Amino acid sequence: MTLLEHTLTSIPPLDHEADRQVQVLLDKKTKPRRSLGKLEDIACQVAAIRGTVHLPVPQKAIVVMAADHGVAEEGISAYPQEVTAQMLLNFARGGAAINVLARHVGAKVVLVDMGVKGDLPKVPEVRSLRVAPGTQNLSRCQAMTREQAVASLERGIQVAGELVDEGISLIAIGDMGIGNTTSSSALVAAFMGVSSSEVTGRGTGLDDAGLFRKIAVVQRALDLHRPDPSRPLDVLACLGGLEIAGLAGVVLGAAARRVPVIMDGFIASTAALVAARLSPRAKDYLIASHRSVEVGHRLVLKSLEKRPYFDLDLRLGEGTGAALTMGLVDAAVKILSEMATFEDAGVSDTGA
Amino acid sequence: MTLLEHTLTSIPPLDHEADRQVQVLLDKKTKPRRSLGKLEDIACQVAAIRGTVHLPVPQKAIVVMAADHGVAEEGISAYPQEVTAQMLLNFARGGAAINVLARHVGAKVVLVDMGVKGDLPKVPEVRSLRVAPGTQNLSRCQAMTREQAVASLERGIQVAGELVDEGISLIAIGDMGIGNTTSSSALVAAFMGVSSSEVTGRGTGLDDAGLFRKIAVVQRALDLHRPDPSRPLDVLACLGGLEIAGLAGVVLGAAARRVPVIMDGFIASTAALVAARLSPRAKDYLIASHRSVEVGHRLVLKSLEKRPYFDLDLRLGEGTGAALTMGLVDAAVKILSEMATFEDAGVSDTGA
Repeated sequence: MTLLEHTLTSIPPLDHEADRQVQVLLDKKTKPRRSLGKLEDIACQVAAIRGTVHLPVPQKAIVVMAADHGVAEEGISAYPQEVTAQMLLNFARGGAAINVLARHVGAKVVLVDMGVKGDLPKVPEVRSLRVAPGTQNLSRCQAMTREQAVASLERGIQVAGELVDEGISLIAIGDMGIGNTTSSSALVAAFMGVSSSEVTGRGTGLDDAGLFRKIAVVQRALDLHRPDPSRPLDVLACLGGLEIAGLAGVVLGAAARRVPVIMDGFIASTAALVAARLSPRAKDYLIASHRSVEVGHRLVLKSLEKRPYFDLDLRLGEGTGAALTMGLVDAAVKILSEMATFEDAGVSDTGA
Repeated sequence: MTLLEHTLTSIPPLDHEADRQVQVLLDKKTKPRRSLGKLEDIACQVAAIRGTVHLPVPQKAIVVMAADHGVAEEGISAYPQEVTAQMLLNFARGGAAINVLARHVGAKVVLVDMGVKGDLPKVPEVRSLRVAPGTQNLSRCQAMTREQAVASLERGIQVAGELVDEGISLIAIGDMGIGNTTSSSALVAAFMGVSSSEVTGRGTGLDDAGLFRKIAVVQRALDLHRPDPSRPLDVLACLGGLEIAGLAGVVLGAAARRVPVIMDGFIASTAALVAARLSPRAKDYLIASHRSVEVGHRLVLKSLEKRPYFDLDLRLGEGTGAALTMGLVDAAVKILSEMATFEDAGVSDTGA
């Protein structure tokens, strides 16, 4: 059995008994029942995933995967392709938004080159797991071979497994790749059976002409490949990005090891959707984060049955929204471990 | 001139030049323009309030004011009145949700007894600024005298001023008081000219019968007092709570000293509305936080032209949502101070 096959079959069901016990514990805390709303939901979900009611503040890692996209040659981004490599090096030097927000929440940033085009200077902060020097142009041919899609997924699984081995218990996923909203729009349209215009947005800042061009490119890709949504690996190979496949692998690998994964915006959430189409149980391991301004994000969240916690009009990617959500997860588990009960505190409990 | 009159006339206009300069600085950071959405808005707003582009991570205090409400005798809460004092002592011992979340974001909690009914044991963690042993029953007579309303406002102004003197540069407001959603519903209905049923919710957990009773009590208060929304001090005296008036004072006092105030849920936001009706400029100093499940909260946010950042189904009060928002403000100012520019990082900037 391959690593991918093994992982897909080894994702355990949630531990609903742990979930139930955590709600019982929360109901004894000095507050009206359920008055902390989704913070309580998060604590319950983490317990169900971890399979225990003992929830220390998690050790946190944000996995940011970068790759290039052949479709960039269609002029579908406001930025030139070399920005993928430039930004990855910016992440390595600690100067990007994701670095600031990771420090803010006490998470380490794990940088992975899944297939940046051209020569990337070797820096110790970036792990090279390159599958190809970028994808092919998905509007003209398959973006990846099936073998490349599997290799990307397996490298993601491997990264997640190593993080869990070193004690990481909460993972966030983030992306960098000029052209990757185009790939994500095509993937979401294919999986959800909607038209290009329903899932294609301005990305990092296209003008109207750019947006119309991008919608046409996505539609051309859908017409060319006529992807079958019941064959997720084929959809991924035709339309996906190397970093999107890698992040889907991170989701699968984390889920197989009972570690929750926080989604970010449109691209990272599309990667999570790919994982959930490969193994429906993966969905249970996903924690929502923010509502991106990118139009396709709503559809992805709907398909994954997740409601976002933040409404911040973010459209950056990199895992920035997921990083902020890590602070919420910490808050949720601290509520469980640090709050007094009605009995401890001598407060009248009416059970309301 | 009284302290209240002096404060109302000394709230400065925002520094829009600082706001503009911060956006220029943010636009040089390695990210598409405005891609951090409301995080950028927060940094700009804090700069406009503080009157400078130099924004260190703020020193933070959460002011939680507690008081009792005569209207509790109408059976409009799921909890007995003694819970106000019990919870205030729970705050003092550090066991409540607000204590956990304050530690999480590195804020100190300032506890103020504005008028808890009965004898409260003296504890050093609670500051006594009692104006009365709770309000009168607002559905039968004025909740407070005009003098009590002014005294409560001025004690809040005093608390804010002292915090600013000791170096606090970001304040969150929170409440505790059995019956205070009833008072808030009446205040919001009076200020916004809407009916009781549009602004009255289940508070900490009323059943249907309790909700109908509460709606009737609020309507009776409105019919009795026929408050004139153009006379905010009279509205406050007729319908307000001592802690709501105190928190409105905190908003005014902080605004007069160029310190931003983070609103919380329905009650704290109603206090902010009272402040904004007393001095429209106070609105500019308010930072939104979450969207409470309490129905009247939406109306308050609309009146204050604020959109919430979190959607967490909170309905606890205490300043819990505001505390979480402090983490967002920290993140916003760190983005401004810690991110690299396109020039620093050697990243291609297309101006998108």
